Amino acid sequence: MANVGLPAGTRDFLPEQLIFRQKVIGIMKEVFERYGFLPLETPAVERLDVLSGKYGAEADRLIFKVLKRGEELKSALAKGGELADMGLRYDLTVPLCRVVAMHQNEIDFPFRRYQIQPVWRADKPQKGRYREFYQCDVDIVGQEAPLADAELVAMTDEVFTALGFSNFSIRVNHRQILSALAEWAGISNEQQAGFFSALDKLDKVGLDGVKKEFEERGFSAASVKKVIPALEANSLESLGKDLGGSEKGKTATREMENLLKYAKNLGVSSNAVSYDLSLARGLDYYTGPIFETVLSDTNIGSVTGGGRYDNLIGLFTGREVPATGTSFGLERIIDVLTERGKLEGVVGVTQVVVLPFDEASLGYGLEVAAFLREKKVRTEVYPFAKDKIRDKFAWVSKRKIAFVAVVGPDEMAERQVAFKNMTTAQQVKLPFGQLPAELQSS
Amino acid sequence: MANVGLPAGTRDFLPEQLIFRQKVIGIMKEVFERYGFLPLETPAVERLDVLSGKYGAEADRLIFKVLKRGEELKSALAKGGELADMGLRYDLTVPLCRVVAMHQNEIDFPFRRYQIQPVWRADKPQKGRYREFYQCDVDIVGQEAPLADAELVAMTDEVFTALGFSNFSIRVNHRQILSALAEWAGISNEQQAGFFSALDKLDKVGLDGVKKEFEERGFSAASVKKVIPALEANSLESLGKDLGGSEKGKTATREMENLLKYAKNLGVSSNAVSYDLSLARGLDYYTGPIFETVLSDTNIGSVTGGGRYDNLIGLFTGREVPATGTSFGLERIIDVLTERGKLEGVVGVTQVVVLPFDEASLGYGLEVAAFLREKKVRTEVYPFAKDKIRDKFAWVSKRKIAFVAVVGPDEMAERQVAFKNMTTAQQVKLPFGQLPAELQSS
Repeated sequence: MANVGLPAGTRDFLPEQLIFRQKVIGIMKEVFERYGFLPLETPAVERLDVLSGKYGAEADRLIFKVLKRGEELKSALAKGGELADMGLRYDLTVPLCRVVAMHQNEIDFPFRRYQIQPVWRADKPQKGRYREFYQCDVDIVGQEAPLADAELVAMTDEVFTALGFSNFSIRVNHRQILSALAEWAGISNEQQAGFFSALDKLDKVGLDGVKKEFEERGFSAASVKKVIPALEANSLESLGKDLGGSEKGKTATREMENLLKYAKNLGVSSNAVSYDLSLARGLDYYTGPIFETVLSDTNIGSVTGGGRYDNLIGLFTGREVPATGTSFGLERIIDVLTERGKLEGVVGVTQVVVLPFDEASLGYGLEVAAFLREKKVRTEVYPFAKDKIRDKFAWVSKRKIAFVAVVGPDEMAERQVAFKNMTTAQQVKLPFGQLPAELQSS
Repeated sequence: MANVGLPAGTRDFLPEQLIFRQKVIGIMKEVFERYGFLPLETPAVERLDVLSGKYGAEADRLIFKVLKRGEELKSALAKGGELADMGLRYDLTVPLCRVVAMHQNEIDFPFRRYQIQPVWRADKPQKGRYREFYQCDVDIVGQEAPLADAELVAMTDEVFTALGFSNFSIRVNHRQILSALAEWAGISNEQQAGFFSALDKLDKVGLDGVKKEFEERGFSAASVKKVIPALEANSLESLGKDLGGSEKGKTATREMENLLKYAKNLGVSSNAVSYDLSLARGLDYYTGPIFETVLSDTNIGSVTGGGRYDNLIGLFTGREVPATGTSFGLERIIDVLTERGKLEGVVGVTQVVVLPFDEASLGYGLEVAAFLREKKVRTEVYPFAKDKIRDKFAWVSKRKIAFVAVVGPDEMAERQVAFKNMTTAQQVKLPFGQLPAELQSS
């Protein structure tokens, strides 16, 4: 007998679970398209020279590599050369940059695209962490801050509203504000990465914890004395005053103010979005506004993360192209929705089973099935005509199908159909070509 | 500057093309679900021991292999062991068999599933042949012939009708009829594979060509004399008489007759489906009814192919599970539809661009965008507020967007919006909160 295992960290999606996932994705896609974003798909495999060196050394080790084939493999083995020539897609940002570079003459800019596809990472699999998982990215390429960024915030607000969340909070900040703040406080460029990393822990360790980390990192007492009150105030207005002496600080606080104003114009309530000076986001390549979303009544961490990356696409195109984007943590969002039992649906699930009473009525039953399907009713024919009628009904009950269309010798002679509502147990006999009221809207 | 190529034989799908593909797939999915089929997804990677040895030696060479990592790779290199532990999915049938074996206690049988996902094959890329391409399979696992097979035929008929094809032809045959025919004509078991292969060429080489190949393959004159008239008659009725002496022949012709009768009951017109004794299909594992679809007004070959494979799943489960399925040649179907310019659509394409006259009216413009999106109108905001109004209109025209919502100082003061239909050039001024008639149904 053949082996039947799955590779570590991968999953099958059986129908019930997949229909739920597709429903969540469908809601998100509808919002993306309502905001003028268009879909993009790229291959699962990318050339290794495209993937390598973009994510840092540690991430490079997590890229799944595809073995060379034939003579090339033989030659690589003989000479001790690179054994692989392709890698599985590690994220959706590098493919986007490659697409913009390769297709820049075909694309209309600003390029508003969304991409929902799996990525692969050779991480150690554990609960909630997979080696194959979906990412869902929404980006605007070719438009400067802050209107494009505000559009992303408004779209994010709409996505969580459409998914039925009420307690979510979109936090925004600006990398240049953080940078200006560091300069104003006398923190050196070399210390900035550590400064961002310490800030980001405010949620977890509190103001005292952050202060302690600043001191451990060797920031001067004067620096700490300037930064802590700014963090405590956590106010754009007072930052505007503090950083008013720096061109960078002035521009960035004004951009941030405009982003929030535009988001409000776009209908985002002030409950849903807030300025947060402690938000730093991990990725190195952010250059302007940054954002993330947290679900206030969970402790699963952020469910979106993103920001502006005006210098990244230039690595691929050779000329600077401003860009901003956000990534939805699809797997986390689906986990939360699954736990809450939200979005229970019947999309794609059979509505009627045609149940021929005996083999002689099967042909007539098939005509009934054809009629139902013509009326867009999702219909199956009971598969085992020879079964006892009791077994037939037991099968239907187990599968939680709403209606049975019973056809026996009497129904066939009279060209009728007996529709039984399996929830109410009520039965109605109708002439062939008529639908019970409950099925008419489908 | 970074490298920006694509791996050979792979493609990006930019929005316009992808929206078209998704529309085709959406139509097919709707039909599948109307026939009670549910979606399934499996990982892109499978264990090598699951994939290997299932497709034959030649196909095994076409499987893309994923390199082992870390210590396992080092050890394999040192000892000359297998360098890979996973392979990219080669088709959707082996994953289905694995899923049935792994999840047999969770699945309701008959398991009616469809699966639309990419597969990867290290074939030499050429026009129309890719290394990453989508397959689209529809199968029924756990139900015997011929009702399940007839359902597949009816579903296939419906799919091509829904896609707007009128000149298509579904050809059906039965492997056991072919086998009984060979026995009746005195063709040995060893010669049967050659017999099937010669039959399959009837379309291309004609009856004389097939006769010639029979002779070249060394079939006896008596065999050829029996088979050629049967092929010429191409009739189930006369086959019933010819093969009446064999239990296998009797059962198979009766099954075939019932399949065609059920398909007719299910609404398939006799133009759309026909018995074809010359249909043999290449795969070894078919055991019963087989089918394929050709588009009569093209010469691109078959656009679906399938059949019953009652012994294959048993390799994975250790017990026999009857199964039948069909595979849609999605890439070919999309190519034909693209060439014919069918299915031109606007799904997901922006309907309205809000065009603020100047920077001062941007905030009001964003409120207009928020209102339009709330009404489910797919809306963008013109991205560069400082552009000249002439440039703004040129941008909208180039992108073929149907409506512009112009907001300037006057509109803002009066809380109005000037909607301009870009096709008719007609403009209408409406109070904020009203939609032009053409946008109301969206």
